[in-house]
Amino acid sequence: MSRFFSDKYMDLTPYTPGEQPREQKNIVKLNTNENPYPPLPEVAKAAAEASGRLYLYSDTECTELRKALAKRLDVSTDELLMTNGSDEILNFAFMAFCDKHIPAVFADITYGFYPVFAAINQVPYEEIPLKEDLTIDVADYFQRAGTIFIANPNAPTAIALRAREIEEVLKHNPYNVVVVDEAYVDFGAESCVPLIRKYDNLLVTQTFSKSRSMAGARLGMGIGNPDLIRDLNTVKFSTNPYNVNSLTSAAGVASLKHDEYNRENCLKIMETRERYERILRGMGFEMTESQTNFFFARHPAISGKDLYLELKKRGVLIRHFDIERIKDYNRITIGTPEQMDRLLKETEAILEERK
Amino acid sequence: MSRFFSDKYMDLTPYTPGEQPREQKNIVKLNTNENPYPPLPEVAKAAAEASGRLYLYSDTECTELRKALAKRLDVSTDELLMTNGSDEILNFAFMAFCDKHIPAVFADITYGFYPVFAAINQVPYEEIPLKEDLTIDVADYFQRAGTIFIANPNAPTAIALRAREIEEVLKHNPYNVVVVDEAYVDFGAESCVPLIRKYDNLLVTQTFSKSRSMAGARLGMGIGNPDLIRDLNTVKFSTNPYNVNSLTSAAGVASLKHDEYNRENCLKIMETRERYERILRGMGFEMTESQTNFFFARHPAISGKDLYLELKKRGVLIRHFDIERIKDYNRITIGTPEQMDRLLKETEAILEERK
Repeated sequence: MSRFFSDKYMDLTPYTPGEQPREQKNIVKLNTNENPYPPLPEVAKAAAEASGRLYLYSDTECTELRKALAKRLDVSTDELLMTNGSDEILNFAFMAFCDKHIPAVFADITYGFYPVFAAINQVPYEEIPLKEDLTIDVADYFQRAGTIFIANPNAPTAIALRAREIEEVLKHNPYNVVVVDEAYVDFGAESCVPLIRKYDNLLVTQTFSKSRSMAGARLGMGIGNPDLIRDLNTVKFSTNPYNVNSLTSAAGVASLKHDEYNRENCLKIMETRERYERILRGMGFEMTESQTNFFFARHPAISGKDLYLELKKRGVLIRHFDIERIKDYNRITIGTPEQMDRLLKETEAILEERK
Repeated sequence: MSRFFSDKYMDLTPYTPGEQPREQKNIVKLNTNENPYPPLPEVAKAAAEASGRLYLYSDTECTELRKALAKRLDVSTDELLMTNGSDEILNFAFMAFCDKHIPAVFADITYGFYPVFAAINQVPYEEIPLKEDLTIDVADYFQRAGTIFIANPNAPTAIALRAREIEEVLKHNPYNVVVVDEAYVDFGAESCVPLIRKYDNLLVTQTFSKSRSMAGARLGMGIGNPDLIRDLNTVKFSTNPYNVNSLTSAAGVASLKHDEYNRENCLKIMETRERYERILRGMGFEMTESQTNFFFARHPAISGKDLYLELKKRGVLIRHFDIERIKDYNRITIGTPEQMDRLLKETEAILEERK
């Protein structure tokens, strides 16, 4: 820390992203929930074409992209805001809808960035414990005096709520904003987007990172009624109006033009999920019911940390969280069948050694 | 505004970016200080190649880019931080080095985003008037109890300080950070980067938007001693660790590989500047001595606003600021000679009509 760093950040602990090994040869990367299928060549082509106009500023309104996305999501363009990844829209929501009088409210086990967003924005927060089985009891979120953040499906637990359960939360919080973080929604869960016209306190966030294979492009979005979106635009235009660059915008438009391909990849991943869930359970793993592109699993014969470390030695990266309540678990991204076979092979060898 | 927007932003007025006409045919765009020369095809190629790996997260450290840039700037990689445009690094500086006890200090006429950054971060600020001739008296910045922001060259005035003048400001502010915003430095002014090892209170910000023709890619940077950079990284990893996407990173690396081309474009623009400065002065324009890629000019026969509006009608966009002290002026980007000829032609016609 320099001697100039503002006192307000003295105790700030930044978020720790998952490891990104520089040398990826022979490494099976199942630790950051990336989609294993690359985007179509049309996406590369669109980015290359946009490069020729790179001397001009990007469109602060993301006009073309919002138009395409509005059509896809069946909303209007003024119900949409594009951001530099969904981390940015989440941070904007903490900025716009929380302050020292309006705390943030979220689960004790959820996306690890929420407490960091609260800290950087100097916002108090309240953590609501998940139930014993790691599910959310929506009644715990009724009549809360704060802005509610629900990741649905939740991460790292992989468990989803039904849209009608979230609707109960919305109904019981007419005076505060409910943010539904749908980073993983496209792998089988129900989206709350159709509810935005019914509830003016609903903000849904989504991302191109997972279901559209564009984690490296950084493209996220907020979906909500035009007044909420206007507030978030006020924040955007007061921090970084050109937050989405031209290359990413063009890639996003191209990706939406061929969204059927993305949809098929999601289905492939869901099929892989079903198949390997059975196999892993057969090997003795206990796991939550995943509606995402990852498993949240533990094995009675080995601690979460040991399995993580042993797999890492063997070139398979999964994610372990050093959090007391979930320390037995690991979060394992669902990759290609080939990657999953490698996971199985190495895991079997590790478990065999322990016998 | 929604009924949920935090009170703290009640009076927030966002920044207004320059107009970006959707239909650009026949429009001469001299209003947002873009470089008129597109990046090399190698930049497009690099972005297209990076598209294939878009399903993987971007490198939060921008390792390759920082390595290339460190070499170019003759600094070490831990003296560098890459951001989503230079607006982001400026906002990070307001976050890290200002708070309610540490005000921001900047000129009354300078980059219009500074007061907005102060407002969004709820930081008090002090504006120091430029001298009558629109230059900065560095002595006004000595022994200030706040974080100083100096755009050098300044915008929209186009006037540069010498590095040794800024060194005086650094010497006289040993207890506070001095941010030197060098967005336009590559068009003939002196950079303060060589001073970062001598002054631990110096943060220099630069951008690929102007001199490297990459406004659409959003690539900015902070350059300072490793402790300052560490603080700014704490802020980055607490808001948006993946702030620079893979396409932009790859484009940046490619651009640096061929930096001689960018240098030549800057020289071309400086030549155009000298040639058209003479012509405009000959037409009766009064202007500051520009060390940037734009003119700051007024004409005794027409108000700034009228000239701006008349030129707009004729398809030439320049930028007018509705600020009392500079309302006679316009900021005119230096484009290609062809674009400048069109500016001359339309301006002559407008002035002729007024005779």
